[in-house]
Amino acid sequence: MEAAELDAADPLAAYRDRFVGAADPLVYFDGNSLGRPLEVTGPRLAEFVEREWGGRLIRGWDERWFDLPRTLGDRLGATCLGAAAGQVAVGDSTTVLLYKLMRAAVAARQGRTEIVLDRDQFPTDRYVADGVARETGLTLRWVEVDPSAGVTPELLADVVGPQTALVVLNHVAYRSAWLADAPALTRIAHDAGALVLWDLCHSAGVVPVELDAWGVDLAVGCTYKYLNGGPGSPAFLYVAERHLDRLTQPIQGWMGADDPFLMGPAYVPAPGIRRFLSGTPAIVGMLALEDMLDLVGEVGVAAIRAKSVALTEHAVELSSELLAPLGVVLASPLDPERRGGHVTLNHPLMREATAELWRRDVIPDYRDPGGLRIGLSPLSTSYAEVRAGLESVRAVLDGLTA
Amino acid sequence: MEAAELDAADPLAAYRDRFVGAADPLVYFDGNSLGRPLEVTGPRLAEFVEREWGGRLIRGWDERWFDLPRTLGDRLGATCLGAAAGQVAVGDSTTVLLYKLMRAAVAARQGRTEIVLDRDQFPTDRYVADGVARETGLTLRWVEVDPSAGVTPELLADVVGPQTALVVLNHVAYRSAWLADAPALTRIAHDAGALVLWDLCHSAGVVPVELDAWGVDLAVGCTYKYLNGGPGSPAFLYVAERHLDRLTQPIQGWMGADDPFLMGPAYVPAPGIRRFLSGTPAIVGMLALEDMLDLVGEVGVAAIRAKSVALTEHAVELSSELLAPLGVVLASPLDPERRGGHVTLNHPLMREATAELWRRDVIPDYRDPGGLRIGLSPLSTSYAEVRAGLESVRAVLDGLTA
Repeated sequence: MEAAELDAADPLAAYRDRFVGAADPLVYFDGNSLGRPLEVTGPRLAEFVEREWGGRLIRGWDERWFDLPRTLGDRLGATCLGAAAGQVAVGDSTTVLLYKLMRAAVAARQGRTEIVLDRDQFPTDRYVADGVARETGLTLRWVEVDPSAGVTPELLADVVGPQTALVVLNHVAYRSAWLADAPALTRIAHDAGALVLWDLCHSAGVVPVELDAWGVDLAVGCTYKYLNGGPGSPAFLYVAERHLDRLTQPIQGWMGADDPFLMGPAYVPAPGIRRFLSGTPAIVGMLALEDMLDLVGEVGVAAIRAKSVALTEHAVELSSELLAPLGVVLASPLDPERRGGHVTLNHPLMREATAELWRRDVIPDYRDPGGLRIGLSPLSTSYAEVRAGLESVRAVLDGLTA
Repeated sequence: MEAAELDAADPLAAYRDRFVGAADPLVYFDGNSLGRPLEVTGPRLAEFVEREWGGRLIRGWDERWFDLPRTLGDRLGATCLGAAAGQVAVGDSTTVLLYKLMRAAVAARQGRTEIVLDRDQFPTDRYVADGVARETGLTLRWVEVDPSAGVTPELLADVVGPQTALVVLNHVAYRSAWLADAPALTRIAHDAGALVLWDLCHSAGVVPVELDAWGVDLAVGCTYKYLNGGPGSPAFLYVAERHLDRLTQPIQGWMGADDPFLMGPAYVPAPGIRRFLSGTPAIVGMLALEDMLDLVGEVGVAAIRAKSVALTEHAVELSSELLAPLGVVLASPLDPERRGGHVTLNHPLMREATAELWRRDVIPDYRDPGGLRIGLSPLSTSYAEVRAGLESVRAVLDGLTA
């Protein structure tokens, strides 16, 4: 089908107008790195400053903000993560949360000697794990993956064993968009007696996630990609209910203390998810996420995923038609069941092409080696935008190879 | 002098109108917990969402945001901290930064066995140190202090020695407002071969700080008190230039990596202050702080401190006149040279009094045991407000003891 027909038939097409910049001619292929803001968010931040911060002042903590990391976590859990209340909290950066949960998991599996990751995992996951392994005396064990695919149950089963303390995996791979079979991989980790920590940065809000049903132990994710929380908005973490009162994390601050206002002599961790918090929560940074959860709740992740699949299918078809003749190779799974919300297209000149595309107001990402990464945020991206963007890629590559 | 005369003579009086709510009859004695927003901040956040986030989208990272933790850190260092460029960065919560720097310091003083703190230190400092001590096998060593005063050079000299790895101190004590003699205490720590980490939460923006001149090693502080950054705005850290390339911190994320966009196999810490960062910086949370630094830069910390001293002097005098007859005792230093930006007044009924004061739109803090904490943010507080507030305290205590 042509882009115009697809847009006309798209039941979610009207939502695009709720985002800032929807009327611009810009082609935005980077909503998987930084989602567009909603139109409601700017005025609502101004109102927050005037009325809630400025009007309620310190009373705002008692009235709403103190609980916001958890109430927002519960909403996120219900809307996007398949997590019952009390297991999700919003706060810190993904990096800091990865650190806390890796430390917690390693301590809970004392005596085991390895953390398992995959070789193509998002660098921060690997960096944090490297630091945690060094300070706790563990070893990193790698799943070797095909960089245009990802971790399969067979590959994981080969490396986990009685030595595995923790398996850390990306639900959607940041380069290939490989969508891992999370329930199957979780079972394999559990069969080896290991805990599993899922990084949902590239899936939360765009791919259905069922943490409780999948039996996941731990998860983290960011809120500025498909959850449109704004640059540097706080991350989230999930700890399954069965682990909540057994695990502890090392960054002991007032927000994680049993009675935060007692200010007593010793740190006693709070019961429940709050013990995974540390310092004062970043309230201003959470407001845009609140707005986006309203919208995601209205539309539903299933409908968002359906459009996401259709958008990436459209991009794959157009790439095959327009770009394959120029030597461009699909570096993402062809099977939409195994593909997340973006598509990566490889060509030796993609670095140069990306710079030129940016000059033409077509904004994808570039990822080594030779990968043009096209992120398609379902609620703010039209099929016409996909078509216009890929036609620009063709024109730019044509110019570079002429 | 009467409050009205003091306000009429106050060279900073006009700045009060730049804050949201300045015209309200509310008496706000909690700017030392959460500063009022500036009037410019709400519209500016809305504009940020529309133009910078919404307009520049992912390009904003290259254009401005990536460097913001350090450019804002440099401005904060120059304006408020007496720190030359390259040593201050904004990010994470105070708790997380305390954790990173305590871990870094303990590693740099390997073989030493103690972390020194004072018994009345802000609980989070104690909680973090407790966690760091347990995981690194160190012991906490306490300076015993008079709770209406704080750590003196003599008290510190008694507990530091060749076993001391790190001394962690509050520049202004959160209860008594004791203003520590930071240069003298720093020298004592250094004479013992220890590093010193100053918590500036209750002094940054209101008390002159000269980190470079004092020879301080490490510091952290928050930006939502006297720096009016908003609820949960990111904290800041300082690492003296001589330590920058020797210390490392354990939370290894992409923002602290030498080449954050290389996404290579191994984590190599960046040179300079960036290695103390971890995850994606909380950009939206930094904007209000930018606005306040404009204002602090315009006025200057020396002038702010002069008004701060005059405000606390006025509160001490009024307390002696209005409240001492009811049994209220000053729990802060009488000497303004040793007093920070707030005043604590003790009475057995202050917990009940605080609840009643809040009902009357007089908003102080309560801190155990029996302390009414009156925070006087110099740019947004008038002498008339101090007078009105303390008269309300008298009326409420009168009612409670009648």
